[in-house]
Amino acid sequence: MGMMRGVSAIFVMFLFVIAVNGRGLGPSISKPDPADGVATARWLASQNTWGVLSTISIELKGAPFGNVVSFSDGLPDKGLGVPYFYMSTLDPTPRNALKDERASFAVSEVPIGSCGKADPENPTCSKLTLTGKLKLVSRNTKEAESAASALFSKHPEMKDWPKDHEFEIYRLDIEDIFLIDWFGGRKPITLAQYLHPRMDQLASVV
Amino acid sequence: MGMMRGVSAIFVMFLFVIAVNGRGLGPSISKPDPADGVATARWLASQNTWGVLSTISIELKGAPFGNVVSFSDGLPDKGLGVPYFYMSTLDPTPRNALKDERASFAVSEVPIGSCGKADPENPTCSKLTLTGKLKLVSRNTKEAESAASALFSKHPEMKDWPKDHEFEIYRLDIEDIFLIDWFGGRKPITLAQYLHPRMDQLASVV
Repeated sequence: MGMMRGVSAIFVMFLFVIAVNGRGLGPSISKPDPADGVATARWLASQNTWGVLSTISIELKGAPFGNVVSFSDGLPDKGLGVPYFYMSTLDPTPRNALKDERASFAVSEVPIGSCGKADPENPTCSKLTLTGKLKLVSRNTKEAESAASALFSKHPEMKDWPKDHEFEIYRLDIEDIFLIDWFGGRKPITLAQYLHPRMDQLASVV
Repeated sequence: MGMMRGVSAIFVMFLFVIAVNGRGLGPSISKPDPADGVATARWLASQNTWGVLSTISIELKGAPFGNVVSFSDGLPDKGLGVPYFYMSTLDPTPRNALKDERASFAVSEVPIGSCGKADPENPTCSKLTLTGKLKLVSRNTKEAESAASALFSKHPEMKDWPKDHEFEIYRLDIEDIFLIDWFGGRKPITLAQYLHPRMDQLASVV
């Protein structure tokens, strides 16, 4: 009976781990203090794996067009803040960007799993929109190589996606950072702060 | 001991229910057959509670601007397909829409929790973008009343949001439906099909 109880306890613990982790999407690094907007923004970019990439639609005559896409800003927990995408021109988003580079990329804290009971639109449930220019990354460059590692490490199935669909790597060159992570409206963050957080801030993100 | 084992078994079952439900975001209605694009699109709109609403940015001089927002297309499991939003003009998105109505709203199957191991960009993990015009709903109308019920039933904290922030209800008047729910590219769906699915299709959604 003692052994049975031991096995039962291990089973309970196992289920508890599954329960706490939900669908396995929990963040591997805990949420920064909301007072630290730069760290929060970088954490949102590093811990998310998908978001919505918006471009100016050709087909819809200039309407904004948001599209759910996967992304990576670096190796797991080693994000550098700049989102890379792996898209085919069978999809409208890269076609739009090749005509008009203006784009924005939005992610939420909800998929990371740390908003608790806060509504997705409650300002304590943080959200980040990076706006700038969406650029094709040239093949066979050092950047393409590191971007591929960043993407494939978080999205292992990508490397097996059909070769004849001509997937290419794209990078968002960020110009504006829109972060909500607490009451009081948009948190002011400059591009320089976002790309080069002070070392003590970075320590809590990477 | 028998009683203890009974309690232990109930506890294990309880944890198992938590584990299966993840963060309690599981769909209350199972995913339609991907061959039925209309039902899938309506299911994505009905079962999601947040997405990214894109507008043409005033501040960013015409760039597309995606913003994470909550929404509702009706009472739980009684969705009608048309997304309503509850936003304040302290937020840039409604300000943009009041100047240029063109907008799109994107949701993914990922938050519903039924993509399994498929990558968020894998076409079997479905996604929906509704593009059209974002309109302010007049206060004190029948539509405002039913939209408020739709929103507050899925987002209970909204009704307590600060009165002095002047939250208003907005509706997306859909013109184009972009659905990916399987291999082979965009699934053709007309607005009429989306808004008025055949009764036998509707039966699987509401």
